[in-house]
Amino acid sequence: MTFPPDPLPDRPLPPDLVAALVALLGPRFTSAAAVRLQHGRDESYHPPFPPDAVVYPHTTEEVAAIVRACAARRVPMIPFGAGTSLEGHVAALRGGVCLDLSGMDAIVAVRPQDMDATVQAGVTRKRLNAHLRDTGLFFPIDPGADATLGGMAATRASGTNAVRYGTMREAVLALTVVTPQGEVIRTGGRARKSSAGYDLTRLYVGSEGTLGLITEVTVRLHGIPETVMAAVCPFPSVAQAVNTVIHTIQAGIPIARVEFLNAHQMEAVNRYSRMNHAVTPTLFFEFHGSPAHVTEQVEVVRALAADQGGADFQWTATPEERDRLWAARHTAYYAALALRPGAKGFSSDVCVPISRLADCLTETEADLEASSLTTTVVGHVGDGNFHVLFVIDPDDPAQREEANRLNERIVARALAMEGTCTGEHGIGYGKMSHLEAEHGDALAVMRRLKRALDPDDLMNPGKIVRLDL
Amino acid sequence: MTFPPDPLPDRPLPPDLVAALVALLGPRFTSAAAVRLQHGRDESYHPPFPPDAVVYPHTTEEVAAIVRACAARRVPMIPFGAGTSLEGHVAALRGGVCLDLSGMDAIVAVRPQDMDATVQAGVTRKRLNAHLRDTGLFFPIDPGADATLGGMAATRASGTNAVRYGTMREAVLALTVVTPQGEVIRTGGRARKSSAGYDLTRLYVGSEGTLGLITEVTVRLHGIPETVMAAVCPFPSVAQAVNTVIHTIQAGIPIARVEFLNAHQMEAVNRYSRMNHAVTPTLFFEFHGSPAHVTEQVEVVRALAADQGGADFQWTATPEERDRLWAARHTAYYAALALRPGAKGFSSDVCVPISRLADCLTETEADLEASSLTTTVVGHVGDGNFHVLFVIDPDDPAQREEANRLNERIVARALAMEGTCTGEHGIGYGKMSHLEAEHGDALAVMRRLKRALDPDDLMNPGKIVRLDL
Repeated sequence: MTFPPDPLPDRPLPPDLVAALVALLGPRFTSAAAVRLQHGRDESYHPPFPPDAVVYPHTTEEVAAIVRACAARRVPMIPFGAGTSLEGHVAALRGGVCLDLSGMDAIVAVRPQDMDATVQAGVTRKRLNAHLRDTGLFFPIDPGADATLGGMAATRASGTNAVRYGTMREAVLALTVVTPQGEVIRTGGRARKSSAGYDLTRLYVGSEGTLGLITEVTVRLHGIPETVMAAVCPFPSVAQAVNTVIHTIQAGIPIARVEFLNAHQMEAVNRYSRMNHAVTPTLFFEFHGSPAHVTEQVEVVRALAADQGGADFQWTATPEERDRLWAARHTAYYAALALRPGAKGFSSDVCVPISRLADCLTETEADLEASSLTTTVVGHVGDGNFHVLFVIDPDDPAQREEANRLNERIVARALAMEGTCTGEHGIGYGKMSHLEAEHGDALAVMRRLKRALDPDDLMNPGKIVRLDL
Repeated sequence: MTFPPDPLPDRPLPPDLVAALVALLGPRFTSAAAVRLQHGRDESYHPPFPPDAVVYPHTTEEVAAIVRACAARRVPMIPFGAGTSLEGHVAALRGGVCLDLSGMDAIVAVRPQDMDATVQAGVTRKRLNAHLRDTGLFFPIDPGADATLGGMAATRASGTNAVRYGTMREAVLALTVVTPQGEVIRTGGRARKSSAGYDLTRLYVGSEGTLGLITEVTVRLHGIPETVMAAVCPFPSVAQAVNTVIHTIQAGIPIARVEFLNAHQMEAVNRYSRMNHAVTPTLFFEFHGSPAHVTEQVEVVRALAADQGGADFQWTATPEERDRLWAARHTAYYAALALRPGAKGFSSDVCVPISRLADCLTETEADLEASSLTTTVVGHVGDGNFHVLFVIDPDDPAQREEANRLNERIVARALAMEGTCTGEHGIGYGKMSHLEAEHGDALAVMRRLKRALDPDDLMNPGKIVRLDL
């Protein structure tokens, strides 16, 4: 694999901007090639685009000062958290300054009585949960990667717990945002509900840094459940596994996690995480609640699984075994990549209404079986969301083309079923044509919003919508 | 009471607009005085402002044609549902055409397998629930009044069930919207989650008709719980009732409803609904779930109430008795008004983080006791939301002034506690100064949004933000 694909662009920033940023940040400004390269790519197959410089602010005020300095000189700005996005979100398509917010890692406040917390954007979900350990509370949103809360808010992330606890859309109570004009705003208070004007919180959640930079996030927390039980259940077919999920959701069972892995993915997980599960379509379950309520949930779901030919549940016996199970699920992407050393991942991310999920997955599996590519399928199926992971050599045009062709079919199928092209990864620069297919005329409204808030197109330009068309 | 306060304004619409609307709608266009008067007021004390004409479209396409006709002549447009809003939302401050959407009452689709439904904007929540009766599903958002789903979406309404089922923010999956330019857009699909671009659904939810007109609403439904139990519990003091709620929420009990009524409100309810409850701070509870899960919830909450000096729960014995209890709660506003025949209501609507609720309510009660006004207090206290109902003669400047003075104190107190000036009623033209106090610099961003989407300020002008300042 060649990386970077092109020589590092030589596109110096305005000298007075460099001087201003150095004066503000000292050694927390850099234009070192290695750092620029690292900040121009995420975990996907998308070609990297390095920024011209990287800065490491520590406070909202520093971010605002950087934004004002860049805006005055019309230099693009790209926010960077943990770099775990999957659609080229951090690529500096037009160069500019990357704001690495990982140093903004203060936990500003935890309020156990209100079950909420405020953190700086660079705090990762694992760090927040480690910090919460003694409070009896946890932050449930769990995209697998140890992403920052700022990044998760910016991409409207979710993950395995969303079926019960919702996504970042539901989790975020308020944000501190630096606008493209360098103003600092707070999008809401801490009340659990409000009808006070336009929902700026939800506008910035999922805006991928294109309307302003998120510097602080206030999130809802949840009580750690009294009882947690996790189990694995293999099925004879994809349809039977998915039907079990559909019936579980339709029965109103408040299941905490229900994850699908197809046979190829189970094989990859067995190899990568040294496990011995059956190589067949499989569901991973987790149940939360009081002992009696968990027992009740388990009984219903077990019966539904048995109706669909599922084997008996294999329970995790200890918290350690449970952690190992979910670690195996969370490393599914890396396990798939390990099937072809040196390959890159390309993940689809469609989400459909639950009644269409069995059809959508079965038809997709048929497409994949007919292809020569290495693929796996994993899914947050309780939400109707699944990922086909294409494990490809990005330098092989035939593989890239085949993956693209299949992905187009998957997206078209999901949209025809009233679903979405992305359940949780976002648009970045990788899915802009799908966004257009999905939203049609509504894209004009999105462009009006972008133009109104960022008229010079300086905030993560070239992502979600393009103004230069 | 004098109504209308001023003579009906004589401000004819452009004759070619009238001709175009009559050609489109025939008798579904009217400028009859009585109809205009009826459409210029809501259920609040705010002075009415009649529109210049009222039209009754039946389809999204008719709405789009009306919008294009009005926009071309720069005539303001005001949407009207059931007229149950409380902040002057429907007042035609600058005249124009009122679009009464109550005739858009088709239930477009109910999809039991996906637990969602699509309805035209004029369908009321009671009608939707009546229609759903045989599906085992229900639509939980319940603002008391039999509002339309379009109006509820536009004001981000909630009500008694929000503590468990969320507000319109969580309930709405997608909207059909006619933009100020007369385009028809759909803000989303039916997937349970999506990261596909800016969250237009949440932008329009709560936008009060100022960014476009909602013509169809797709909402999540929920399974009718197997067991429903409702109870009443009187307390010695406001603080003890509220502490019970705080402890219930903090214990993670998924209570379906928990409503607070102060002693004055209980007196009003007893009189209006012919009941015999103790005249003391009281909680109304409702529990949903499987029989075992409900029993478990009830045991915890009963113990928490007893710790706070609550009397034993008085259970409703039959579904009819339960309906009567909630009818009494839902008519609390009218019960309060009946304390002073001929008076008008003026409702505060603050919402605070739950840990501050006891302080906020206790301090507010002290303010009210020191005042000469007739007031009651009701609250969706599980969310931290409560209403002071001022029952005043709007023609008495001293009463109006005193109510305003107290309301300013209540709002300032809630904002100081990181709460909001409105939990569920919205801004309309009644709370614009409070919106400014709450959002500060973020109001500039709201103005940019309004200007971007409705540059001529024709959609419900003078609500939420003013562009003419």
